[in-house]
Amino acid sequence: MTNWREIHSSRHLIGRLQWGSDLLDEITRICREEKVQLGRVEALGAVSKARLGYYDQQAREYRFIDMEKDLEITKLVGNVSLKDGEPMVHAHVTLADREGRAYGGHLAPGTVVFACEFIIEAFEGPLLTRSYDAETGLQLWSMK
Amino acid sequence: MTNWREIHSSRHLIGRLQWGSDLLDEITRICREEKVQLGRVEALGAVSKARLGYYDQQAREYRFIDMEKDLEITKLVGNVSLKDGEPMVHAHVTLADREGRAYGGHLAPGTVVFACEFIIEAFEGPLLTRSYDAETGLQLWSMK
Amino acid sequence: MTNWREIHSSRHLIGRLQWGSDLLDEITRICREEKVQLGRVEALGAVSKARLGYYDQQAREYRFIDMEKDLEITKLVGNVSLKDGEPMVHAHVTLADREGRAYGGHLAPGTVVFACEFIIEAFEGPLLTRSYDAETGLQLWSMK
Repeated sequence: MTNWREIHSSRHLIGRLQWGSDLLDEITRICREEKVQLGRVEALGAVSKARLGYYDQQAREYRFIDMEKDLEITKLVGNVSLKDGEPMVHAHVTLADREGRAYGGHLAPGTVVFACEFIIEAFEGPLLTRSYDAETGLQLWSMK
Repeated sequence: MTNWREIHSSRHLIGRLQWGSDLLDEITRICREEKVQLGRVEALGAVSKARLGYYDQQAREYRFIDMEKDLEITKLVGNVSLKDGEPMVHAHVTLADREGRAYGGHLAPGTVVFACEFIIEAFEGPLLTRSYDAETGLQLWSMK
Repeated sequence: MTNWREIHSSRHLIGRLQWGSDLLDEITRICREEKVQLGRVEALGAVSKARLGYYDQQAREYRFIDMEKDLEITKLVGNVSLKDGEPMVHAHVTLADREGRAYGGHLAPGTVVFACEFIIEAFEGPLLTRSYDAETGLQLWSMK
């Protein structure tokens, strides 16, 4: 069901990711190092290759799209919550190629940073934990 | 004219929307229930169908694009202000299909949630109210 | 290298841009007038034409894509930092046409506002300054 909780902004981190690093892994690493257990992430920049996930709602599994080219990150947006006791970043990205055409999807490991500027906002409040949701087959927040 | 006001962050709500609910209606319902009169919204997730608006700047009317397929929400971004005395959510979305191609536009009722994680940030400060703007034909903020 | 700093939210500005103004220039003007030296920007709306940048990672130069048509802004996201001692807005946009197809890239001057609603969040903390980065050829934050 639709459900929500009140949380409070506690910290903001701003920075940039290293050339050649893995976009998702590196943001996840920062969240773990800084002990961000609940938060939001946004970023822009460029990648030298990308791996996007698309959730097949009928088959109930992710399909992956590999893009072996340079792309602008027109937007990365994500949230931070817990899965198996560790901070997990769930992010979606929109990318654009040299003709300006946009692509997007679930950010998967294998997306390589060319340049990336990010802001992470950490929240205080009741933590959210992902677990299997029978309705969708996804790992969603348990919010009883 | 270009005009702006200073506001202050007061509350954050984080949560997820029910499978099968109407994306715009459900976010609007939460804002009304929580008495958010001024705010911002962001979300990511997936929908099982979408209805996007495109404002025809010459004809001065919205055209609607119906997409009868599963799509990732790579980004929903919106704001909350008042229209006719009630909180109104104005949101735009970017979506992506199974080939990773992106689509976007003004979020219209008729977009159905598969899974959706949202953050609503409520602001305190002078309220903003929409009214008819002769220059564009849109309902924009009166900021005299 | 990957590097970041802790900052604090200090002010939020909400408003709308004038019809016919230059999207990037106008946001930059507001930041300078309000003395926002570090911050984030987000916006949605529509433009009557757009100029998008795409950074050619091999040639190490921006290419520009001109779109002479009405487009929805499905998302503008950017940050504010210093370049040559002045606030500079670095923003990326995602746009959509009347068929709902999405485009995106680095927001360049020459993108003209039809209607645009923005939120600027100013931060306090160590300022960030752009300078030439040899690895990418871009003006990135020095974060020693």
